[in-house]
Formats: sequence, C-alpha cells, structure tokens
Amino acid sequence: MESGSRGAAPGGMSVSAVLPAGGSGERLGGATPKQFCAVQGRPLVSYAVRAMERISWISDIIVVVSPENIETMKTIIEKYGHKRVTVVEGGITRHRSIFNGLKVFAENEFSSHLLQKPEVVIIHDAVRPFVEEDIVSKVVMAAKEHGAAGAIRPLVSTVIASAADGCLDHSLERARYRASEMPQAFLFDIIYEAYQQCTDYDLDYGTECLHLALKYCKTSAKLVEGTADLWKVTYKRDLYAAESIIKDNLSQQVCVITNGKESLVQVGFLLPESLKSQIKDKRCAIEETQELVDMLEKSNIPLLCPVVLISVHLDISESNSFSIGMEDLATIKKFAREAKKKNILVYGLLIQYEDPLLLQETVSSAAALIMALIKDRNPELIGQLLVA
Amino acid sequence: MESGSRGAAPGGMSVSAVLPAGGSGERLGGATPKQFCAVQGRPLVSYAVRAMERISWISDIIVVVSPENIETMKTIIEKYGHKRVTVVEGGITRHRSIFNGLKVFAENEFSSHLLQKPEVVIIHDAVRPFVEEDIVSKVVMAAKEHGAAGAIRPLVSTVIASAADGCLDHSLERARYRASEMPQAFLFDIIYEAYQQCTDYDLDYGTECLHLALKYCKTSAKLVEGTADLWKVTYKRDLYAAESIIKDNLSQQVCVITNGKESLVQVGFLLPESLKSQIKDKRCAIEETQELVDMLEKSNIPLLCPVVLISVHLDISESNSFSIGMEDLATIKKFAREAKKKNILVYGLLIQYEDPLLLQETVSSAAALIMALIKDRNPELIGQLLVA
Repeated sequence: MESGSRGAAPGGMSVSAVLPAGGSGERLGGATPKQFCAVQGRPLVSYAVRAMERISWISDIIVVVSPENIETMKTIIEKYGHKRVTVVEGGITRHRSIFNGLKVFAENEFSSHLLQKPEVVIIHDAVRPFVEEDIVSKVVMAAKEHGAAGAIRPLVSTVIASAADGCLDHSLERARYRASEMPQAFLFDIIYEAYQQCTDYDLDYGTECLHLALKYCKTSAKLVEGTADLWKVTYKRDLYAAESIIKDNLSQQVCVITNGKESLVQVGFLLPESLKSQIKDKRCAIEETQELVDMLEKSNIPLLCPVVLISVHLDISESNSFSIGMEDLATIKKFAREAKKKNILVYGLLIQYEDPLLLQETVSSAAALIMALIKDRNPELIGQLLVA
Repeated sequence: MESGSRGAAPGGMSVSAVLPAGGSGERLGGATPKQFCAVQGRPLVSYAVRAMERISWISDIIVVVSPENIETMKTIIEKYGHKRVTVVEGGITRHRSIFNGLKVFAENEFSSHLLQKPEVVIIHDAVRPFVEEDIVSKVVMAAKEHGAAGAIRPLVSTVIASAADGCLDHSLERARYRASEMPQAFLFDIIYEAYQQCTDYDLDYGTECLHLALKYCKTSAKLVEGTADLWKVTYKRDLYAAESIIKDNLSQQVCVITNGKESLVQVGFLLPESLKSQIKDKRCAIEETQELVDMLEKSNIPLLCPVVLISVHLDISESNSFSIGMEDLATIKKFAREAKKKNILVYGLLIQYEDPLLLQETVSSAAALIMALIKDRNPELIGQLLVA
C-alpha cells in the first residue's frame, strides 16, 4: 500500500505546500467542481493532498477552498485521515486564493495559530493527482537556488494568436515555448513579496505565479522538465483517464490468501507470478471472509480505495453438476452489499478441480477472471459467483 | 448504430479530406504508433476515418501513412469496410506527409488514377477520433469564405518562453492565445500553392498548416471555436480516455429481445426506459442465441465495436435451489469463446421470478447488471452466468 517518504528535506530546508482548490470546474460541464469529483469513490483533491503528504519533508499543507466547500474539505480530511493539512478560505480568483494560503504563514488573522514560515513554499494544484516526490524535490531544490522554479512540459498543440477579426494573427514556433505546469516552488519571501506588490488586475486576471515572481521580484524561475503524469484534470475525459490510471495502479497490489489444503495451495502456486505477492494460510468460508472484511475495515485501507476481495471456492467433488441453494446465493449477495458500504468489493470465484490435466488451463482462466475483477472494481458485480 | 450523414456539401462545393497518419507516437512510450493502437479492439485511425466517412459530402479521404504501415492501413480499410479512402505513402515529417496527400489531387505520379481536385480540402488528424459533422461543416464554410480556417480551443496551461539558461524569459497572457486544433480546411489551390512555395526548413520543422497559408499565400485563416471533443490522443492517458468515451457512447445503444411468454414480457417492461429501445419476440435458449450471433456476424456490426449479447434466463420454478450441470456451464463458455472471435461478447443472466413482491427489486438488480456488462464490455467475463 502507500507509504510515506523517509527522505530528508532537500538541502535540509523547511518546506511547506499550498494547494489552491477553489476552482469552479466550469470546463468540466458539471455541477461539482472537479477537485471534489470522485475517482474510485474518493475525491480528486484527496489524491493530490496524499501526493504531498507522503513526502515526509513537507511540513504543512495548506488547502485553499471556496467558503461553501470548507466543510466538505474538512470532512474529506477527517475521512481519509490526512495529516499536516490546514484548510483556508479562498478568494474569488486563483491568485487571491494562493495569496490567502500564503498569509497563514505570515499573518495572524488567517489562522488560529500562525504556522511556521517555511524557507521554500510549493504551489501545487488540487487537480493534479499523480505528482511524484522526485519532481517535487527537483523543483524545490531549483527554487532554493534560483528563488523560483516550475515544472514545464512540451506543448501538445501549436499556439496561435488571433487578430481582432477572429482570424489568425500569427502562430508561435512550438519548439521555443513550453506549457507551464505544477508543481512550482518559491523562496517564501520572494513569492509573498510578489503577491504583496502586485496589482488588483494581476490578482483578478493573472494565472501564473512565475510571472509575478519575475515582474515584482526580478526573479527568473528555473524551468524544470516535468513528467507526463503532471497533467491537470480539466475535462471529463481527464476524469476518465485518472480513473483508469488509478485502477491500473491499484491492480498492481494483490494479496493471495489460501487455506492449508494441499490442493488449494497447489492451485495457489499455479497462479501467475503477478498474483503471488503473498500467500497465507487461511480458510475460505463466508465466516473467514467476514473476519477478513472486519480486519480490512479496522485497517482503514479500504477508505483510500475500494478493496477487492475474491473468495475462491475450490470444487474438488467428483460430481459434474454444480448446485447452489438460492438462499446461499442471497446470503452471499447480502454479505457483499454490506461489505460494499465499507468500500470492500466481494466477489466469488469457483475453481473446479476435477481433471488434473485441465488444471493449468482452469487456473489460467481463474487468474484472468481475478485480474479482470481487480482491474475493473465493478461495484455492480459484487456478490456474483463466477466460474473458472 | 452509426449512420452516414445525408446532408449536402456546405455551399454545394466539392470537398475532400487528408488525414496524416504517419506519426511515430513516441510520446505514447509504446512501440505501436498511437493511430494504430486498439481502442475497444479497433485501431484509433479507423474511428477518425469513420468520423470523416459518415459525412456524406466528403468525396475522397486520403490517409497518409509511413511506408511500413501501408499494408496495415489497407487491411484496416478492408476489415472495417471503409469507403472512399485512398492510402498514400507519407514523407518523413508531418508537412511532407500532408503535401504527399495533396499531390494525389494534382499530380499523376502519386496515384494510379488522379482523384478529382476538390474546391476545399479538409486536413484532420488520424488521432482525433471524435470530430462531429457540425464543426467540420463550420470549418469548411469558413475556408470557402476566407481561403483557410481551423478549429481552436482555449489554452489549458499558461504558455511560457524559456531563455537560453533554462530560466523563464516571459509568460504569455493566456486569454490572448489559443491552441490550434484540427480539423482545418483550405481552398485547395491556396494550401497546395503554399506547400509548393515553402522551404525545406518549413517542411522539416514546421507543424502548422495555417502558418503556411499565411506566410506563402497571405491568407489569414478564420479561427473557429471547437468543441472539447476535438482533442488529440497524445499520451497513454488519452487512450484511456478515448476507451472510456467510446464505451460510454456504445452503452447508449441497447436492444432488448424477449420471448413471448407473458412473465418474460412483464419482466421486459419492468426494465428501465434506458433498456427498452426495442422489444422483440424471441425465444432465449442457446440455439436462438446462436441464430442471433450468426445474424449479427452477417450484419458486420460487431466489426465496428464489440457487441454485447446478454442471454437472459427467467427462472420461474418454485424450487429455491438453483442447479446447473457443469457440462452446461462448459458449453456456454465454449459458445461464448467462439462468439468472442466474431467480436460478440456473450454473457448469461438469470432472473428469478419466485416472489412477485420482490420482482421490481430483482428487475432493478438485473438492469444494473445489464448496464454494467454493456458499459464494461469486459472480455474476460464472457460465458459467465450472473444472478440478479
């Protein structure tokens, strides 16, 4: 599962982060601002907070939200157990929100207790869920040296300027320009000074922090080539993409638990390597599945993402007819529905063990079904008994 | 299912299209160029070709591919029954490929028969699968009036220029600039003239056709605001997004076929409106399912996208134990595997009809399962019998 970084702060400096999360998400075409849209049941902003939080050398994480979302954000922090997070009320524009976020380190009025002013402050977006420590670290180091730094990416499309009549004025040579992405980082005193100096026009119509540092503090930001995963969730298709990437990432984590019966262990060992990260001794009746559900619930793991629990039944009877009582089926379904409320998706899988010659084929089929269930995490299929 | 447009050419002019599809897809990080990546089993380029082809007033569609992909492209055209398509060998850059595509309308050497020169030529990308007739029509009309036109979109990120030392030189005011997207359209004579006039440097390093029309023919393109679905598949996440959008679109098309038994018809009518676009009289044993598979195969519909076929069994027995022979299960699975080769995904669904009081709940559960199967189109779950 996820683990916090154990690295020291780059260069031993103090670092904190500000995440503006006040956008209205109008480009998404929905009522819910995109930072609060659920991806695998969990709001996007929670992934971004987690991406910062797992970097142990980031002291404080300031999430800036619009007034109507403060309670929502506090609920998210409690539900997902986020630490080191302070929620701050945003302004009506992005720059005003970031400025508010910075003020908690410098002005008493914005927080019940003044947070310790960091040497370097990271500015990241609530709608960029996949940032890795490596790029954050590079940007922070560059900010310490240059006063300001930001991640960049190559342009995907040519950029053009239009004339007043809606016709092409000129196009930019694509290779000379870059898309400015997040994270960015600044010496705190530089970006705070820039925000104090800048005009209302800047605060209302500007979008680029690097521009403010250049214009008001003569600090030319170091540009750091970012990775493709820095992209910002902007449109509905980006939510689809985020969902698929998160499902892909989750599918890497598999734990196989079998009981001690020889035949079952044999089946377990025939499973592909990808499914064999852990094999433990455990019986597989519904009571034991219940124990596992309780254990998972206590661990809080299912809160971060839906956990898939596949109860594998090995049918070693000689009978070539499979029979199950409707009541049993109903019990399994009811059980699965209860587990789903705890964000645990329970599926059943029957593996037949009649013909040893066909075993490898059956196990391959079982493995494919298991991978499909893990990858899809389809909540509608819970409580179904699939047959390998 | 998909249907060709019946509209006349805007303004009664002759229009053809050129689709450069010669890119190497290096940004995707895979060996397969992205235009040939499969989305729901079908190469991306086939969706883009289809998007052009369904517009009936486009006469010829020229797909320009690199020499090593000519055979692949011809196979795709044959497999998916594309019409009005000519495959042309591309050059080593995007501009050289487009120029080659245009030459088939003007020079004998590039085609066994010279295609009729269109008044307006559309240039579109093989990796933009979702273009609608409306925007194509607007761009073509604007090109007829202004000589050149192109779709644009707001910038998602701020664009910046870097200095030689890798630091920020300046940032562009986002509101003044736009991303240049596709489709674009030109009076044929203008764009052909521009390509004939332009330098080797343009052909090797340029990317923007609108720029060539402006520079060499003093034609300032009309910029047309495009829709969000014009985006270009560039990264792996874009393939994920395309897959989800295509699944979503496919899920809108449902046909319910029941047999004439009163109880079954009743169940059919209890299904939500979304599932009730067609109800026909049909028995539902495996033989009838086979007939349906044969019919579908002949229709060529499954070639365009995987068809989901859910065989619904209504269990009206009083027995509260459900029993099925392993041989039956094996038969269903084998049948489903055969159907899958024809791109038809067969699933089984058992609806119990024991307690009339619970019927609405059971049918809701069945509908949820049907929607989940339709939406996911998961090839690993074929041949499974789900229970509502």
